[in-house]
Amino acid sequence: MFFSKRDLQFHLYEVLDSESLSQYEYFQDHNRESFDMVLDAAESIAVKMLHPLLTEMDRKEPQLVDGKIRIHEGMKAIIKKMGDDGWVNAAFRYDEGGQQLPITVLNAAGFIFQAANYSSSIFSFMSGGSANLIRTFGSQELIDRFTPNMYSGKWQGTMALTEPNAGSSLSDISTIAEPTDEAGVYKIKGQKIFISAGDHDACENVVHLMLAKIKGGPIGAKGISLFVVPQKRPENGELIDNDVITAGIFHKMGYKGAPIAHLSIGSNDGTLGYLVGEPHKGLNYMFQLMNEARIGVGLNATAIGTAAYHSSLAYAKERPQGRKISEKDPTKPQITIINHADVKRMLLFQKAVVEGSLGLLLFCSKLSDLILVETGEAKERAELLLDLLTPVGKSYPSEMCCLSTSAAVQVLGGSGYTTDFPVEQYYREARIHPIHEGTTAIHGLDLLGRKLTIHNGKAAQIFFEEVSKTMNEAAQIPALQPFVEKLQKYLAKAQQATGYLLGLAGKGEIEKYLADATLYLEMFGIITIAWQWLGQAIVAERKLAEAHDTDQNFYQGKLATLRYFYEYELVKVDSLVKRLQSTDSVTIEMQADWF
Amino acid sequence: MFFSKRDLQFHLYEVLDSESLSQYEYFQDHNRESFDMVLDAAESIAVKMLHPLLTEMDRKEPQLVDGKIRIHEGMKAIIKKMGDDGWVNAAFRYDEGGQQLPITVLNAAGFIFQAANYSSSIFSFMSGGSANLIRTFGSQELIDRFTPNMYSGKWQGTMALTEPNAGSSLSDISTIAEPTDEAGVYKIKGQKIFISAGDHDACENVVHLMLAKIKGGPIGAKGISLFVVPQKRPENGELIDNDVITAGIFHKMGYKGAPIAHLSIGSNDGTLGYLVGEPHKGLNYMFQLMNEARIGVGLNATAIGTAAYHSSLAYAKERPQGRKISEKDPTKPQITIINHADVKRMLLFQKAVVEGSLGLLLFCSKLSDLILVETGEAKERAELLLDLLTPVGKSYPSEMCCLSTSAAVQVLGGSGYTTDFPVEQYYREARIHPIHEGTTAIHGLDLLGRKLTIHNGKAAQIFFEEVSKTMNEAAQIPALQPFVEKLQKYLAKAQQATGYLLGLAGKGEIEKYLADATLYLEMFGIITIAWQWLGQAIVAERKLAEAHDTDQNFYQGKLATLRYFYEYELVKVDSLVKRLQSTDSVTIEMQADWF
Repeated sequence: MFFSKRDLQFHLYEVLDSESLSQYEYFQDHNRESFDMVLDAAESIAVKMLHPLLTEMDRKEPQLVDGKIRIHEGMKAIIKKMGDDGWVNAAFRYDEGGQQLPITVLNAAGFIFQAANYSSSIFSFMSGGSANLIRTFGSQELIDRFTPNMYSGKWQGTMALTEPNAGSSLSDISTIAEPTDEAGVYKIKGQKIFISAGDHDACENVVHLMLAKIKGGPIGAKGISLFVVPQKRPENGELIDNDVITAGIFHKMGYKGAPIAHLSIGSNDGTLGYLVGEPHKGLNYMFQLMNEARIGVGLNATAIGTAAYHSSLAYAKERPQGRKISEKDPTKPQITIINHADVKRMLLFQKAVVEGSLGLLLFCSKLSDLILVETGEAKERAELLLDLLTPVGKSYPSEMCCLSTSAAVQVLGGSGYTTDFPVEQYYREARIHPIHEGTTAIHGLDLLGRKLTIHNGKAAQIFFEEVSKTMNEAAQIPALQPFVEKLQKYLAKAQQATGYLLGLAGKGEIEKYLADATLYLEMFGIITIAWQWLGQAIVAERKLAEAHDTDQNFYQGKLATLRYFYEYELVKVDSLVKRLQSTDSVTIEMQADWF
Repeated sequence: MFFSKRDLQFHLYEVLDSESLSQYEYFQDHNRESFDMVLDAAESIAVKMLHPLLTEMDRKEPQLVDGKIRIHEGMKAIIKKMGDDGWVNAAFRYDEGGQQLPITVLNAAGFIFQAANYSSSIFSFMSGGSANLIRTFGSQELIDRFTPNMYSGKWQGTMALTEPNAGSSLSDISTIAEPTDEAGVYKIKGQKIFISAGDHDACENVVHLMLAKIKGGPIGAKGISLFVVPQKRPENGELIDNDVITAGIFHKMGYKGAPIAHLSIGSNDGTLGYLVGEPHKGLNYMFQLMNEARIGVGLNATAIGTAAYHSSLAYAKERPQGRKISEKDPTKPQITIINHADVKRMLLFQKAVVEGSLGLLLFCSKLSDLILVETGEAKERAELLLDLLTPVGKSYPSEMCCLSTSAAVQVLGGSGYTTDFPVEQYYREARIHPIHEGTTAIHGLDLLGRKLTIHNGKAAQIFFEEVSKTMNEAAQIPALQPFVEKLQKYLAKAQQATGYLLGLAGKGEIEKYLADATLYLEMFGIITIAWQWLGQAIVAERKLAEAHDTDQNFYQGKLATLRYFYEYELVKVDSLVKRLQSTDSVTIEMQADWF
């Protein structure tokens, strides 16, 4: 199996107490039973429809034929099923046709889809995200005109941000919107690249949520507006060509089943776009919903890492090779490789990364749910905490699942490098995540340069309070005390490094302050996941005594992974803080000509 | 360009003083001029023949058609050129048709080939290695019968070790050799997998250097013998089918241009093999020449990492994106990304890894040359040092070039993930190296469990003497003193960790002693490369004052990379020694059922 249902349930019900969400009126129709039904339904689709196409969608890449992208023919049925069963808008309100499902549970289901076959999961994910932008910020007219067909899977939704000369530097986009006589309707002209599901033959129409600059508007990020730019305009029950041309398709190292398009917009002056919300607020709108997409990317990475972990685990349990290190007798039978300490280390590493990440991302998902239903201080706390954790939840899994899928390959040895096993595909698919939805460097700057300091550091304060709460709880359990002490020590080191860097900021040494933001993010991620593991361990310790058989093994595994994380991963903070507090600015002083 | 000739010359002539080899009678015909001619010739072939096929060999994979592997048609001319120009046996003696070229220079040339197109470079590399086994341990008859056509490129040589049930655990091979009436001739039967260049249509015959067990021989590793097992037997001027069937081809994540075969030997009872040397000494023979192959793999990894580094460097110098972190004015033009500290960090990381690794591997190559021409203690020192450094020279570049090619991908952002640029291919190709020629775990065990302790730790002592020598030299240069102090401190930490682990060995706690051998190897690798960078910095510091223009930039780059390495990489030893000296044996105690 490509994921552990037991582990997913552990996070949802034993750690996060997701059922408690039904106390809120908005979620009152839900309970553990309905949540389990959602997960079962997701598993059924994942096993029967998505996973069987995993390899084939990688081998038979989408192609651009006569201006149209052809994707794997199996995707038609999947996209239809996702629409029919309400997966695109499951979290939206009843009055929008949704099911008011908690994001926590929807993300748990999405995790199952992504672990089964990442490429196949992105179509409805993209439609959901872009429809969410329209329903949140768009006029009722736009909502009525576009979202129903996006929910049903008939039309594909996308997020069209990146341009050839504007990737990380979004403020430099040059797609132009010119007002027409009709209010809210603009002529659009420009180029967009790397547009996921930007065109394909399994839908009738594509609805791009596109950033563009209104002619004459403010310069830079403040002049960016958000538009609905359909491939075909729905007018009087017909679909009119809207001059959005698929100029190219990008072939990629991995997640090949998902088409990534280069779009040419308005090259024949025939593209109309519909303004979403107010002019010049596009980036604001985008960022308000970016958390969702970024947590989504972290989850994608975690899901791929999870599939790779389980694949290598199954192999390690079956593959005989070598003998115990102390066994010199060659006539003894070989043992399965899961008995070698180094193989267990590689499996523990994967388990620590993917189950730690999953815990964090479901925690973040629950914050999204609380933001929706809470008010006052509780809502504000959840918002600030989610803001702070978003770059971590996006980047730690993205970076670490490149390494954990690599460990999966290594467990299989030579076989892992061949296409006979899926781990090499997971390794290739994992590599996109540190890049899209903001590179790791961008998230480092976001965390250290913005999230830590906004609201006078209140978000960071809330985070440290949350960590303290977990530590206090863990300190009640004697077996966990050594881990509390360790985390306390490392937290203090991290805080010291933070103080040092903020001191640089205070002195106006902005370049020095932010030069190693990527390393700061790495350090922060390790601390965060160490906190997550402590939380998981509290539950495991409490339940271990009464647990039987497989459950006992399950909790023992959790506690061993806690040990692994604190022994092998948390100690990396030592090296990171040493660098972060160094005065040698070599990366600033290095000159281009010296390379 | 996919490598830096200036850097290669720096290592060969400024750091290693390779010309000094011509003082030895064996190398007396060589000098810097002839070395440069060799490098120029290699560069010419690499640029004109190998590099142009880089992408195409990746896209058009070898296929097994009617029992024969078809490779890219361009390989025929390359293999012929390599044979015609004497690259296969360039390092062998004049009386063997060789050129008595130092391994140092041959490896520098090989590095150019590998950086140009790794897949295309392995054919002559494999032939050279296997011919070396025959010429070193085989009878004159075997030498005469097989090697001339291997040298000319007419016949392909291979190393056939791995079997479906014997990978890391070579002692478990089950290929059987049964004596025939003719002395030295055996009937061979078995299966071999993952045989590089094990069959292809660009050669007339394939000569496998194959490990097998003679029926009735000792059990385990001590019963393994080495055979020449040709695909076709040369008999009386004809080639007779030898019942070596290509049962399959492995499709792989990377270095797709090189065919990896599954061979079925003697399935119709028709395979004859010729014993090389004495019975039951096969593994000894193989290991005596394994150093060569392992240094070769380290070099392959370094070459791929080098090509990726230069590819990302060129991109970073041209790609405009964003502005200085302190520049808030969006009307200012974008700057090229090489001006961002985080991009420089990723480039410095790559430079530190690949140029540090290249230095180490050419140092090891020079040790091979010295072993050939030196006698007495000097020879013994070189042998012991090379023995010790071989697992490091194999594994550090292999592991780290997975990360450095990943950094190259990251520098390019979304473009790096597409097939429009070669970095994604380099990322896939780099991933094989921690696996083949012994996984990283195997080399960890080799270093910590064997190389450190043999000859009463003499090899380690010699290594520390060499490091001290470099530190003493560097200590004469004021600018390098801080680095000497740092290295001294970390060396002491590493020695303390070593003492702790050997203490466990002394107490008979073998499993604990070796459980983290992979981490020990990682730590040892970092120390070793820090030492290499100090050596490079000594030269740079001495030459900087009189250097002009590009040379000044070159030396500045070396010194900045020294700083980078000590700031960002050497500090990782802190975390590693903390783990290595911990008493928590979680990877030993973890149970299979707990996963």
